[in-house]
Amino acid sequence: MTSQIPVAVLGATGSVGQRFMSLLDNHPWFKVVALAASDRSVGQPYEKACRWYLAEPLPEWARDMVVVPATPEAIQAKIVFSALPADLAKGLEPQFAQAGFAVCSNASSYRRDADVPLLLPEVNADHIQLIRQQRQNHGWSGCILTNPNCTSTGLTVALKALQDAFGLKKAFVVSLQALSGAGYPGVPSMDIADNVIPYIGGEEEKVEWEPRKMLGKLGVAGVELAEVKFSAHTNRVAVTDGHTVCASVELGLEATPQQAIQAIREYQAPASARSLPSAPQPALVYRDESDRPQPRLDRMTGKGMTSIVGRMRPDPLLHLKFVTLSHNTIRGAAGGSIYNAELLVQEGLL
Amino acid sequence: MTSQIPVAVLGATGSVGQRFMSLLDNHPWFKVVALAASDRSVGQPYEKACRWYLAEPLPEWARDMVVVPATPEAIQAKIVFSALPADLAKGLEPQFAQAGFAVCSNASSYRRDADVPLLLPEVNADHIQLIRQQRQNHGWSGCILTNPNCTSTGLTVALKALQDAFGLKKAFVVSLQALSGAGYPGVPSMDIADNVIPYIGGEEEKVEWEPRKMLGKLGVAGVELAEVKFSAHTNRVAVTDGHTVCASVELGLEATPQQAIQAIREYQAPASARSLPSAPQPALVYRDESDRPQPRLDRMTGKGMTSIVGRMRPDPLLHLKFVTLSHNTIRGAAGGSIYNAELLVQEGLL
Amino acid sequence: MTSQIPVAVLGATGSVGQRFMSLLDNHPWFKVVALAASDRSVGQPYEKACRWYLAEPLPEWARDMVVVPATPEAIQAKIVFSALPADLAKGLEPQFAQAGFAVCSNASSYRRDADVPLLLPEVNADHIQLIRQQRQNHGWSGCILTNPNCTSTGLTVALKALQDAFGLKKAFVVSLQALSGAGYPGVPSMDIADNVIPYIGGEEEKVEWEPRKMLGKLGVAGVELAEVKFSAHTNRVAVTDGHTVCASVELGLEATPQQAIQAIREYQAPASARSLPSAPQPALVYRDESDRPQPRLDRMTGKGMTSIVGRMRPDPLLHLKFVTLSHNTIRGAAGGSIYNAELLVQEGLL
Amino acid sequence: MTSQIPVAVLGATGSVGQRFMSLLDNHPWFKVVALAASDRSVGQPYEKACRWYLAEPLPEWARDMVVVPATPEAIQAKIVFSALPADLAKGLEPQFAQAGFAVCSNASSYRRDADVPLLLPEVNADHIQLIRQQRQNHGWSGCILTNPNCTSTGLTVALKALQDAFGLKKAFVVSLQALSGAGYPGVPSMDIADNVIPYIGGEEEKVEWEPRKMLGKLGVAGVELAEVKFSAHTNRVAVTDGHTVCASVELGLEATPQQAIQAIREYQAPASARSLPSAPQPALVYRDESDRPQPRLDRMTGKGMTSIVGRMRPDPLLHLKFVTLSHNTIRGAAGGSIYNAELLVQEGLL
Repeated sequence: MTSQIPVAVLGATGSVGQRFMSLLDNHPWFKVVALAASDRSVGQPYEKACRWYLAEPLPEWARDMVVVPATPEAIQAKIVFSALPADLAKGLEPQFAQAGFAVCSNASSYRRDADVPLLLPEVNADHIQLIRQQRQNHGWSGCILTNPNCTSTGLTVALKALQDAFGLKKAFVVSLQALSGAGYPGVPSMDIADNVIPYIGGEEEKVEWEPRKMLGKLGVAGVELAEVKFSAHTNRVAVTDGHTVCASVELGLEATPQQAIQAIREYQAPASARSLPSAPQPALVYRDESDRPQPRLDRMTGKGMTSIVGRMRPDPLLHLKFVTLSHNTIRGAAGGSIYNAELLVQEGLL
Repeated sequence: MTSQIPVAVLGATGSVGQRFMSLLDNHPWFKVVALAASDRSVGQPYEKACRWYLAEPLPEWARDMVVVPATPEAIQAKIVFSALPADLAKGLEPQFAQAGFAVCSNASSYRRDADVPLLLPEVNADHIQLIRQQRQNHGWSGCILTNPNCTSTGLTVALKALQDAFGLKKAFVVSLQALSGAGYPGVPSMDIADNVIPYIGGEEEKVEWEPRKMLGKLGVAGVELAEVKFSAHTNRVAVTDGHTVCASVELGLEATPQQAIQAIREYQAPASARSLPSAPQPALVYRDESDRPQPRLDRMTGKGMTSIVGRMRPDPLLHLKFVTLSHNTIRGAAGGSIYNAELLVQEGLL
Repeated sequence: MTSQIPVAVLGATGSVGQRFMSLLDNHPWFKVVALAASDRSVGQPYEKACRWYLAEPLPEWARDMVVVPATPEAIQAKIVFSALPADLAKGLEPQFAQAGFAVCSNASSYRRDADVPLLLPEVNADHIQLIRQQRQNHGWSGCILTNPNCTSTGLTVALKALQDAFGLKKAFVVSLQALSGAGYPGVPSMDIADNVIPYIGGEEEKVEWEPRKMLGKLGVAGVELAEVKFSAHTNRVAVTDGHTVCASVELGLEATPQQAIQAIREYQAPASARSLPSAPQPALVYRDESDRPQPRLDRMTGKGMTSIVGRMRPDPLLHLKFVTLSHNTIRGAAGGSIYNAELLVQEGLL
Repeated sequence: MTSQIPVAVLGATGSVGQRFMSLLDNHPWFKVVALAASDRSVGQPYEKACRWYLAEPLPEWARDMVVVPATPEAIQAKIVFSALPADLAKGLEPQFAQAGFAVCSNASSYRRDADVPLLLPEVNADHIQLIRQQRQNHGWSGCILTNPNCTSTGLTVALKALQDAFGLKKAFVVSLQALSGAGYPGVPSMDIADNVIPYIGGEEEKVEWEPRKMLGKLGVAGVELAEVKFSAHTNRVAVTDGHTVCASVELGLEATPQQAIQAIREYQAPASARSLPSAPQPALVYRDESDRPQPRLDRMTGKGMTSIVGRMRPDPLLHLKFVTLSHNTIRGAAGGSIYNAELLVQEGLL
């Protein structure tokens, strides 16, 4: 039934765009029927237009697909996955929603809009209902769904497990982020060789706000932001894939590390999000080793969709400290948008 | 007068030992007269005993010096610089102090002892007076001085400037530490290639305690620990030298970022520590760029002795957040011990 | 039929040993029934004895297997895969062969023996017949098969295609080798960070000799070494997996780059080696891009068993120059030994 | 006398341009009076126009210098150091020469011109006499001098020592080149993290030709190219600075490794080039360790101007093999151009 949903990828030649292509290869529900990119690429076969840089091979079916412009007129599909830069997404995504496409976007442009779901299905699958209101507000037959920035992703899944079990008041987080998060060409090698860059433009603001929306409650007036205060430092390190986050938290009710570990181990995605093709299996993993998670060793857990937690221990200032890891271009970007689209289909909202 | 003080290096073949050799080359006051290392090296010329791995060349005078055992009997010197591992330092350093040597130690064994100064001269030069009491307590003619772990170093200098200006209550710190901090052979390359290790054994405990002693007041009963609460996460990253620390702090009196930057820029080492041969010039630097300090670019500031601060901004949970950097094997290890020894000489306590 | 062949891994806790465990997980013919390692590990469950450092998870069935000593008495199996260091392999492997085991060894100890096959099945599957003579010579019911050093592997497959098509006289080769080739802990990170090490002990001698045996003809008196002269420089670079080799060759008959590329593209493994479970599919790949193969992007081609060639172009001194790449711990080590064992089984020589 | 020669830097904001600025800081003969860069930078103070990325600090005197256009009219100086890209250098450098400037160029545009010296003063200082002919040919009062590509530099110094002692017929060379050689932003970090790139555009052609001109003899008809055949493979590796080259050579007269080492150790720059301010001290170093030279440890030998050789051993195909290293942005770029300018001044050719 669902095996023939036609989808398109906007920004298909970039870093996240390539990840979309790779993850949509052999997808059980979706079939890529169009690829859009910038003018420079339009008219070329994908293989030529794109400098493929994933270790996974470029899917055969994509080689000769001709790149089209990123406009609703040029594309025949039900869903568009947007890997556009934020400035372009701002203008184009509403045009697609207006034209009846479900836009599953990795861009930050509309994450803060009151009627746009900011989704991690294993955390807040119910927020997808916001699109009913969104359609009303705008008179759209399509819609815009967003996934959060890559650094918030694994962190928020872990925080959700703790919030559900103990409540959550404060979170102090410091990221060590992978190079692929900056896209391509992204970070010049001379900037990161034998180095750390203790700054990523706009990232700290996102990490201090986006989890609050995802951890918030959906009410009649939209999402009520969670009353959690965040402080974030974000850093770039010389790792290809996988964002590591050191977190210290104050809970609603104090918990021991053992209780927190149990909460993480027992956490389950909401039922509606649990069995989708891209659902992480499991949503969360806790590792017992003293020095895990580590990006090289753990990022591909659950095909890159699982969030990993480790080093749960008491925090002298707040309650607990721990480390989270998630794959930034899979769970934290393209895989997340696809998971969102699957939820949309299952909920009958396409 | 002081140009002929004979000194020895214990643990001379290791990572910190080599840094001692390099920094003592052409020292205006000290002359290396003996090198000690483990049994395996004893009797060999230094050049053979040691796998020199610094980019600076092995000093000519050291090539043919024959390695001696790390015992007081084998060494004729006034000062010994100890780069011994903590377990060996525990047993050997008191023997040297007993035998009349001033032991300037990089080891952690005695840092917490009530009568052992834990010194950053640009922070707490006055704490050196503790050795009068130490000598009385033990009946030693020599003494033991220590410098803190490498991660606390730059951080504590920055915190001191803020403490002096505004008071200091809480500090949340996350480190991104260089490979050289683990000694040699240290971290296997397969553990850190394309990776981060979110754990360094024993390090968090040190970072949560040592700054409190250095920021504490020297009273008649010894050092009163500063009433500052610390929470630390420590991480290893693929950088050769230079520890980066992300810090968020609660001050006694709230300050704006501008006021804090001014406090850092105006900070000066205590007068007694300001003009010593190894004194950092200046003690602290604040960098205005949005993405500094960075280890590759900034670690050699002030010949590797200066602590660097940047990115001062408001913290949503506490008061301010910022980044510090210091060179872990120069300011944070060998250079620190030498600076301590210089203070000892100047204070007439040798 | 063959699905129940019991096998053991010697040296199971090390770098290559772990790769054996991972590749034997779900193997269609072989079932791991015993793990042997050094005394320090004996008696412990594998999970505890080994510091697992592959990104692929430790197979479930292996977690609780108790490590046994590396002696024939302690092991009930038909085949032993040896990831022992050369010095231990020297003494132990003949004991296993004597006791009736087929030893598929990754160690260098017996590669040069006249009656020991040095095998790349896609190159010289027929050389496996040497073990008939080996069994006669030693009165063994078991046998010893070896695979070559990891640097020779991909190179030799490429050279074989050229040798078959045009003859081969000289090869000048320079390697850029991955860290995993040095085992674990292997290369200290401080030795390779921001660095290249232009030396790997014993490696150049192996690369200059081993391909000659594999490219040689099996006659009645054993293998006649190929009349090819090699010159090798071997280097260590900061790459996790995948050895890159720059090669220049003089052929028997001069060929154009296009002819050479065609020979590589048309090359097929000997029929007996073509359809085994671990046979690379295909044996050789030629990439057209000007800057490939590259280790991060290409090492997993054909599940890490395929050898990759690129940049075929004229050489001003000899005839042609090109670049080869193969995965050093899969095709170049554990995967190679397993492929050899499969050939042994298929040839009815077990 | 010479302490007041006014000089300018063209392309001052780029990677090599920054190195020029750093090396000209406190130069005993030259004083930087103008900085030129692209239109985008013109009119800005240098500190703003340039993203300084060297570990050495931006010289104080340069901070507020206003960037001017790269035209003869905009600059009052005797010498211009050109760090322009080749395409711009092609058009601009002759304009400067015509206008009376001595152009000391790091660009490749004119290296092959018959009347343009391609200079390594410690190798072929006498070739500077070519500019007399150059001036006649073009009617210039100024001139153009060039230094070779960074990969040829250290290699050619080593080859010169061997050529002088034994003659030289063939050289097979494979480079492992540093990131800084690609300029800034240069190589994207995602292309080189956990990777090697076995291709550098246009580099092999340069390495196979430029040493022949430098090793050639200056006759009445210009430089007679040395009758040496080169084959080059060039690779990019994850090293910040320092190009490593593996070389195998056929000499005129066969020599033992010991004889070759002696030739390297005894080699001296031509007398005219030996005592200039930037002359490497010494020109060549031979290291005895089995695993040197290495870029991190050896690149700063002789302030980054010395070429380092190691691992001299017999080559099975030619005569000898060895490894060379030199600092690519110091000896191989900016430092080389400055050394050339010093020779020009000393020879009275300014």
